[in-house]
Amino acid sequence: MKPSSEDGATQAGGPWEECFEAAAQLALRAGQIIRKALSEEKRVSTKTSAADLVTETDHMVEALILQELQQRFPSHRFIAEEAAAAGAKCVLTPSPTWIVDPIDGTCNFVHRFPTVAVSIGFAVNQELEFGVIYHCTEERLYTGRRGRGAFCNGQRLRVSGETDLSKALVLTEIGPRRDPTTLKLFLSNMERLLRAGAHGVRVIGSSTLALCHLASGAADAYYQFGLHCWDLAAATVIIREAGGVVMDTSGGPLDLMSCRVVAAGTREMAVLIAQALQTINYGRDDER
Amino acid sequence: MKPSSEDGATQAGGPWEECFEAAAQLALRAGQIIRKALSEEKRVSTKTSAADLVTETDHMVEALILQELQQRFPSHRFIAEEAAAAGAKCVLTPSPTWIVDPIDGTCNFVHRFPTVAVSIGFAVNQELEFGVIYHCTEERLYTGRRGRGAFCNGQRLRVSGETDLSKALVLTEIGPRRDPTTLKLFLSNMERLLRAGAHGVRVIGSSTLALCHLASGAADAYYQFGLHCWDLAAATVIIREAGGVVMDTSGGPLDLMSCRVVAAGTREMAVLIAQALQTINYGRDDER
Repeated sequence: MKPSSEDGATQAGGPWEECFEAAAQLALRAGQIIRKALSEEKRVSTKTSAADLVTETDHMVEALILQELQQRFPSHRFIAEEAAAAGAKCVLTPSPTWIVDPIDGTCNFVHRFPTVAVSIGFAVNQELEFGVIYHCTEERLYTGRRGRGAFCNGQRLRVSGETDLSKALVLTEIGPRRDPTTLKLFLSNMERLLRAGAHGVRVIGSSTLALCHLASGAADAYYQFGLHCWDLAAATVIIREAGGVVMDTSGGPLDLMSCRVVAAGTREMAVLIAQALQTINYGRDDER
Repeated sequence: MKPSSEDGATQAGGPWEECFEAAAQLALRAGQIIRKALSEEKRVSTKTSAADLVTETDHMVEALILQELQQRFPSHRFIAEEAAAAGAKCVLTPSPTWIVDPIDGTCNFVHRFPTVAVSIGFAVNQELEFGVIYHCTEERLYTGRRGRGAFCNGQRLRVSGETDLSKALVLTEIGPRRDPTTLKLFLSNMERLLRAGAHGVRVIGSSTLALCHLASGAADAYYQFGLHCWDLAAATVIIREAGGVVMDTSGGPLDLMSCRVVAAGTREMAVLIAQALQTINYGRDDER
């Protein structure tokens, strides 16, 4: 799709500049609301399990972001976590598409564990153009734009160059399903990496912020089964623009809708992680 | 032991006020050094395994803290991580004793994963009097003084009142040993808590900061096998003064030298966690 001025695409700062600026501003506004709610929030409902919580703030923040973007960019399409949970289809067409997670780390949010983010990704022609992730309590804005680098609060991000799994710090998340078979596979994957000598495995409760740590070089690899396109979209641009690699757990190209991912600072590390993992099948975002 | 002015014990602010102030000031100074080193550190050696790293900064920060305290309080005793690794005995006598971890989260530090703390505890008559923990990158100073409350940057801390394991956010750490038997037990314990329906388990790579999250109510429980008295001393005072419970994994009273702990916002939660766990025997700090 060719950018047009109606799309907010043709500003001085490059294609989709207006969209990028809108995303950054909305992430900061949403983050303010989330920070405030962290001192008040009480009411919680569950989506599919106790581990997959959703709060009034999720709904409120998603509505804020989508309403504003729909008003400014009426021809664009939207994929968003709470809308998907309510039955909206997740299909990435060539149209300019916003991919939004209003609160990544909802379980953390419910417990006031201060690792919570807003994630806004943007794709055109099924290619990710930019991503914005805001760490609400530490007030860090991570951004990546295709071909223009990745930054955190204005400071350039650069992944780690580690290629040796036995020197790696690896990040993962448990995922929403807690049936015995899924748990066994999750724990077995962690065991494989620790037995391979990884320095450590960290589980911080926010996929997007874990991926931002990877982009900043503070960890060497990330993998997960059971995450969604709205956890991955923004972070994928940020990691790639920080010099890193995002791929499928099979070792093939990333499939944003496949609910699984390996990311690393180097291709060698990503392949080693992918080879070590057993697959946990969470289905696809675009087949629900 | 009765405080005397030579001990720095009889100031206007209560017994051991001068010691507490010294600890807080030293934690801040050490934290500055660590923050600076996070942008420079490269050289690493290993203690007992790849997962148990030690850096020049560990040694430098520990020397800074111990030298200053020894000069100001020459009659006091000291237990400190790097000194212990070099063969010094860890024995808690009735004498005023400082218990110091210069960098908790050394593996994080090595990877520049920004979850790293300085921990300084202080005991008299084998009873913990105060604890100071400084989150170096977020610049949060956690303090607790026996009978006088717990605070983070001046804000009072209060634990969560949760008693239901199926609504709990639980924190743990992997521990330094990575042999197959220890790993199996570690993963089995995590599985037991997740199968009991815990909302989540987090592994952030710093025992002391995990315990500070517990003290602040951001998580409901913590357990670990394979931590040391310098990981526990300061945090124990902070958690107790925030209203929480710190006990042995057997359900009995805490033994600071036993290399194992359960902590929670409520006694009910601590007992539930203790009952769920299988023991991993790491020996004792005072028998090495």
